[in-house]
Amino acid sequence: MKACILSIGDELMSGNTVDTNAAYLSRQLLAAGIEPVLRETVGDNRSAVAEAIVRAASRADVVLVTGGLGPTADDVTRGALADAMGTELEMDERCLADLEEFFRCRHREMVVENRVQAMIPRGAWALPNPIGTAPGLAAKIGRAGVFVMPGVPREMVEMFETGVRPALPASGRAIRQIALHTFGAGESNVFAMIRDLMSREGDVTVGTTISEGLVTVWVTSRAGTEEDAERQALEVVEPLKERLGEIVIGEGKVTMASVVGQLLRERKQTLATGESCTGGLIGELITQVSGASEYYLGGVVAYDNAVKERLLEVPAPLLAAHGAVSEAVVAAMAEGVRRKTGADWGLAVTGIAGPAGGTREKPVGLVYTALAGGGGTKVAKAIVPGDRPLIRQRAAMAAMNMVRLALAGARKG
Amino acid sequence: MKACILSIGDELMSGNTVDTNAAYLSRQLLAAGIEPVLRETVGDNRSAVAEAIVRAASRADVVLVTGGLGPTADDVTRGALADAMGTELEMDERCLADLEEFFRCRHREMVVENRVQAMIPRGAWALPNPIGTAPGLAAKIGRAGVFVMPGVPREMVEMFETGVRPALPASGRAIRQIALHTFGAGESNVFAMIRDLMSREGDVTVGTTISEGLVTVWVTSRAGTEEDAERQALEVVEPLKERLGEIVIGEGKVTMASVVGQLLRERKQTLATGESCTGGLIGELITQVSGASEYYLGGVVAYDNAVKERLLEVPAPLLAAHGAVSEAVVAAMAEGVRRKTGADWGLAVTGIAGPAGGTREKPVGLVYTALAGGGGTKVAKAIVPGDRPLIRQRAAMAAMNMVRLALAGARKG
Repeated sequence: MKACILSIGDELMSGNTVDTNAAYLSRQLLAAGIEPVLRETVGDNRSAVAEAIVRAASRADVVLVTGGLGPTADDVTRGALADAMGTELEMDERCLADLEEFFRCRHREMVVENRVQAMIPRGAWALPNPIGTAPGLAAKIGRAGVFVMPGVPREMVEMFETGVRPALPASGRAIRQIALHTFGAGESNVFAMIRDLMSREGDVTVGTTISEGLVTVWVTSRAGTEEDAERQALEVVEPLKERLGEIVIGEGKVTMASVVGQLLRERKQTLATGESCTGGLIGELITQVSGASEYYLGGVVAYDNAVKERLLEVPAPLLAAHGAVSEAVVAAMAEGVRRKTGADWGLAVTGIAGPAGGTREKPVGLVYTALAGGGGTKVAKAIVPGDRPLIRQRAAMAAMNMVRLALAGARKG
Repeated sequence: MKACILSIGDELMSGNTVDTNAAYLSRQLLAAGIEPVLRETVGDNRSAVAEAIVRAASRADVVLVTGGLGPTADDVTRGALADAMGTELEMDERCLADLEEFFRCRHREMVVENRVQAMIPRGAWALPNPIGTAPGLAAKIGRAGVFVMPGVPREMVEMFETGVRPALPASGRAIRQIALHTFGAGESNVFAMIRDLMSREGDVTVGTTISEGLVTVWVTSRAGTEEDAERQALEVVEPLKERLGEIVIGEGKVTMASVVGQLLRERKQTLATGESCTGGLIGELITQVSGASEYYLGGVVAYDNAVKERLLEVPAPLLAAHGAVSEAVVAAMAEGVRRKTGADWGLAVTGIAGPAGGTREKPVGLVYTALAGGGGTKVAKAIVPGDRPLIRQRAAMAAMNMVRLALAGARKG
């Protein structure tokens, strides 16, 4: 069973908005056993949208369209769907009543422009929008089911969950996808480690991607039943995990920060951070996880040397002798933040994120990380390639990975 | 002059990676006076990619393709371009020599799989890749110029800048786009303020988008010459700026953090931050700007109450009486971080980011921000709608906006 996804909007076409809806819908379709085979983005142009709908409907069993349902003149998707169906728009009294109710409930005036949102192509039916004004649309064109949703991501997700997913055709196929996230080896190194287990053919395929500083190995398994898809996937995942060893940080929806958080929570230990070149990024990533207050106390963003001295008690002579980006200073930062906050673990990072500030001895990308705990302080040094955002991200990830390895290692031992 | 953009890759098709390349290329094309009319995403399937290239080349003057140039079996774009051209792949000795040189310089072994990256369709020519292994490809199909670039965003950007942009056909049209970024009013409020100046027709169009917590008003002007396009755009931008007033934070490539940084730099003043619910996000945003060390000293991530007491000297009785999320505590945090770091300005935020932790008196989304300076301390309170990431982002933006308004106001006065 195949699907096409159409994203409508000049703001997408001009590159001013990045389309996240299509990626969401792709994942949802795959989970329902339906393969997305084509995605298209089209501007707010009625004939271009109509053509795209007709073409998509001729190629797929399911067509998902987002965007262009607003009340203004640049919202053309309703009319385009009517054109694609070879029919016309007509006022849907039930939709109009819902729309009037929506405005009444919110004590907002309904302007005349909004009335157009209650018009639907003859032969189509409306999909309720629980959180916005634009109802969605559903129709049949040939053998294809066509579903039109708003472009606003929150409204789109809500409508997909409540109105579209339940109406998707049964695929008779189950697709199970498992993501193994790794940190500590480049994509080509990961590839070299598992080359013989990678496969592009057959019912189970294995591929890699890089995102958010992690190299992820994707196992996608297709079968007639969910149980078979799961079993097939696990038969590949287990040897992959064994081969990749400790660079695997976790599976599925985890992040480095959530893995570190889970390890700290299990051991009832606390963490504090002293950040220089990352400027607060580690704290930000760790506190993205709801409930981080259980194990994260906080820390110091010691961007300026005076802050390293005043708030982390890094000795001035140490800074003078070694410079802020050095093994001695990063260790003092980690120990300082641990001592000042009373955390079990003090984690610190200092480095040269660039683009300015590099020297021959201390090039852009030089990063020191340190982890101070009850058993002493460990320091690591790395030269990270990339630009400023990438160096900061890799530095933050490398620092959190020190905590992961220290805690996971201790757990095993 | 029209363009199509094709993004190739199973990782895009499955929704595991969000496509940012297409948005970048759209913006670049528009700036060159070429209108993107269609974007397509296709999986790693040779015949589907070839078909998409043929279709795009029949509809546009320029076809930009990204992805599928890697060394492994799932990289099919080279072969697909050959199929679309009705020709075959052959080894390009010059590319092969470049590739061998690339590996030699980096002291890496070149595996046999990499050799395929030096194969190009007969009649096409190679585009150098200054920072990766995969050369790009350029070819003519009918009247269309087809350019193939790697999918890795850094490599794609580098190749576009150096090899593709200079080879784009002259459009004879100039398109000038100006972005006015605002903070402090919702998109519908901004719309209401400038409704009569918004336009979807004619040579100058005006639209709005929301991104990174800012509502941006886009003015797009099309004319025969760059001067005319610029003049037309400014004729609309000036009244827009006047109408929007102090909610306009800046134009073009600025962020809230870069605007605040510029204001601090101009006045030779320094800033320090005390963050609770944002966990380091403000520091992270401020230090995304290269050169932030000139005005940003650092600060304290005071996630735990004990850290608020120990490192920011927030009095324990104050915390006990008012709770961590209160006007009194946020003021003490701002004053504390200013005093401890010696900064000119101390900026603090505390709030309930959720999803847990809300009460009837202090609901999820309650955020206090404070700015302490030589002239005293200002506190602001807001109830921010949205989920955890959105609340944290809005809290960070609202805090930085306090600095902007304080400095911009002082500058005017």
